[in-house]
Amino acid sequence: MDKKKALDLVKAHLTEHRYIHTLGVTEKAVELAYKIGVNVKKAETAAIFHDYAKFRPKEEMRDIIREQGWDENFIHYGDELLHAPAGSYLVNKEIGIEDEEILSAIFWHTTGKENMTELEKVLFLADYIEPNRIFPGVDEVREAAGKNVDRAIVMALRNTICFLMKKNQRVFPKTLYAYNNMVQNLKKQSNIGG
Amino acid sequence: MDKKKALDLVKAHLTEHRYIHTLGVTEKAVELAYKIGVNVKKAETAAIFHDYAKFRPKEEMRDIIREQGWDENFIHYGDELLHAPAGSYLVNKEIGIEDEEILSAIFWHTTGKENMTELEKVLFLADYIEPNRIFPGVDEVREAAGKNVDRAIVMALRNTICFLMKKNQRVFPKTLYAYNNMVQNLKKQSNIGG
Repeated sequence: MDKKKALDLVKAHLTEHRYIHTLGVTEKAVELAYKIGVNVKKAETAAIFHDYAKFRPKEEMRDIIREQGWDENFIHYGDELLHAPAGSYLVNKEIGIEDEEILSAIFWHTTGKENMTELEKVLFLADYIEPNRIFPGVDEVREAAGKNVDRAIVMALRNTICFLMKKNQRVFPKTLYAYNNMVQNLKKQSNIGG
Repeated sequence: MDKKKALDLVKAHLTEHRYIHTLGVTEKAVELAYKIGVNVKKAETAAIFHDYAKFRPKEEMRDIIREQGWDENFIHYGDELLHAPAGSYLVNKEIGIEDEEILSAIFWHTTGKENMTELEKVLFLADYIEPNRIFPGVDEVREAAGKNVDRAIVMALRNTICFLMKKNQRVFPKTLYAYNNMVQNLKKQSNIGG
């Protein structure tokens, strides 16, 4: 899909603030995709539509998750988890995106998971470090992303988990699994490396 | 079992440093047991024997965990997790402790788990805050323990998880489940309370 058309389509579903964020994620996703050799067009499309469902009614999103038989923890670990799986469903039904890699990147962009694909990593990380993001720790993750995407994602996951725990919020189990899995992979890489 | 006899039995298996720690855990476990209405004798016995297997050969402890069909993650998430399940097995076989509540408290004292019993909580927390422990955050947990044991355990679990992540170590999944479960229970309590 043409970038201009895709942005017009998504803009109608977002606030101005969220649209600016989406532009930032798209810019960063394209940059990261070039860097690690991921299909740039897929990264761009996934980024443009990643928050497509952000402002849908929560009950509609919960219904989608239940009807699709997806992990019910998406419903029980905080409403901010709903829009990623619901969005992957809705961009397929309403926009006609059928590429499973793009849909999966949208599905997992908030929580992460074990064994993320390179495209899933690109969107997850772009969403965390896009230029409009300002929060404690983001600059360190940005800097790490310039060197090693996996290491940057480990830092992002760690920040997210500790941030949630400091607020006495529960942590989606697959987010910890993502962290455990990527830390393990990094150790294997560094063992191979030297 | 007589306290003096129990301490003599365990002393033979520990270094002096670890024996002093065991005395601290015992003192703290008895104090917490009185506080929250747990059987004091059981808390004392669980505390005395909680590190019984600490210096066993790692391969012996791994064999016990495999042979008993226990969660293999105890083997894969760092050797410091081995002695708790292995210890529960060995104090049963070698010391003759048969009380399932005591054995379970020893089993889970390092990792925690969902739906901990009050005795399991007492040992877990006593092990974390006993008077000889000195590390960042322990004083805040000690102070919290004087008011609300569950809240203190949430803080201990959070500190442990973030500490491991800062060292780029993986986190035993059931430790996160313990945190999620206790945070949820605390929220329910405060809703009922207010």
